[in-house]
Amino acid sequence: MSGWVIIAGLGPGDDALVTPEVTAALAEATDIVGYIPYVRRVAPRDGLTLHESDNRVEIDRASHALTMAAEGRRVVVVSSGDPGVFAMAAAVFEAMEDRPDWQALDVRVLPGITAMLAAAARIGAPLGHDFAAINLSDNLKPWDVVVHRLQHAARGGFAMAFYNPRSKSRPHQFGDALKVLRAELPGNVPVFFARSVTKPEEEITAVPLAEATPEMADMRTVVIVGTAATRAVGRHHYTPRSVS
Amino acid sequence: MSGWVIIAGLGPGDDALVTPEVTAALAEATDIVGYIPYVRRVAPRDGLTLHESDNRVEIDRASHALTMAAEGRRVVVVSSGDPGVFAMAAAVFEAMEDRPDWQALDVRVLPGITAMLAAAARIGAPLGHDFAAINLSDNLKPWDVVVHRLQHAARGGFAMAFYNPRSKSRPHQFGDALKVLRAELPGNVPVFFARSVTKPEEEITAVPLAEATPEMADMRTVVIVGTAATRAVGRHHYTPRSVS
Repeated sequence: MSGWVIIAGLGPGDDALVTPEVTAALAEATDIVGYIPYVRRVAPRDGLTLHESDNRVEIDRASHALTMAAEGRRVVVVSSGDPGVFAMAAAVFEAMEDRPDWQALDVRVLPGITAMLAAAARIGAPLGHDFAAINLSDNLKPWDVVVHRLQHAARGGFAMAFYNPRSKSRPHQFGDALKVLRAELPGNVPVFFARSVTKPEEEITAVPLAEATPEMADMRTVVIVGTAATRAVGRHHYTPRSVS
Repeated sequence: MSGWVIIAGLGPGDDALVTPEVTAALAEATDIVGYIPYVRRVAPRDGLTLHESDNRVEIDRASHALTMAAEGRRVVVVSSGDPGVFAMAAAVFEAMEDRPDWQALDVRVLPGITAMLAAAARIGAPLGHDFAAINLSDNLKPWDVVVHRLQHAARGGFAMAFYNPRSKSRPHQFGDALKVLRAELPGNVPVFFARSVTKPEEEITAVPLAEATPEMADMRTVVIVGTAATRAVGRHHYTPRSVS
């Protein structure tokens, strides 16, 4: 029997956002690999082995999945959101470098609803025109690259979505990011903090950039920054399609 | 009975990518509103009226949906992909401007799998790090804004996804966009053309920027531009998570 690896996006939290394609892959799997809270979203059943791993061991986890597939197992690597957006897909391909045997395996990516789009839907349409998605973590890139990207995104007039805005090991960076944005954008640009989006404890907050503080974000927050054109209509906020 | 409007994303084409949340909304609707090919993806049934409209009448279509909801009907406005990404959500909120009666209605957005993420999944993980999504159409913004954004996205080191790269009424712009990119990026940066992604006629092509030609894109294509770091591993292409 030939094994495979499917890297699947479970969406932001609500099971009603898991695509039928991903549900079908989970039903065919012999093994589920992933970060603890994502693996726990998969219902146990006979014939299915759940392999939970800690955060920050993405390459080990990817290698484990590929090793099992080479042995004929059907492995789903689960990601939150979309696996291609700051999640496991790139890590699996990185683990395949210099391994022609793994490169010959059947490896597929199944998309999911990524956090910024679930958050945007709750807010209205803040990403209704051109936008940039930026990982604010400097675990894998120097902080000056983050600053450079924030500046170009602001100068280009992009709305923005930030993943991993803040963690215990990086408490000061989001404050620095806000300073960079304040130097580039008007203080009335709206900033949205979407915490645990689509989960029971979901919280969405909107403040002008001038009033945004680092404490408004944590590990479970995706931050969306509008443009000078983003505006409220009733309970909703949107970025108009037109630029004059 | 109180009406509502749900703006729902049907994903890029394959029904296996329609979320259960959207399927449930379609089952509760009395009316479906949208561009002809998207409405035709919804199965007819008793008690459901399908309202097909032509392209480029987004505000009329949104006003029609809001008018019916105000009369107590349950209306789903269908978009391809995700309604918040260059699709119907912003148009519905725009139609609600200066209409406090419509602003008081129950209006919700349900996210969907947007074309760039479905395309990225097929390619590997070309959007595996920071990226920008740009609508190349100048129907609603001046072309010099598009050029300005392309330049900032390139200078910021973002991977890029282009929606609406080319149409019969705008045959020359994608060629101009390629010229802008060639002035900013190395000629070996990979460009991916994903046509009719997830549909039976799907076609994915990868070429170096230096060899990309305008004819490679049409209305049904989403274009993904990697970065100088994007590389092939086996049959897949990915943009590494790390920046050194």
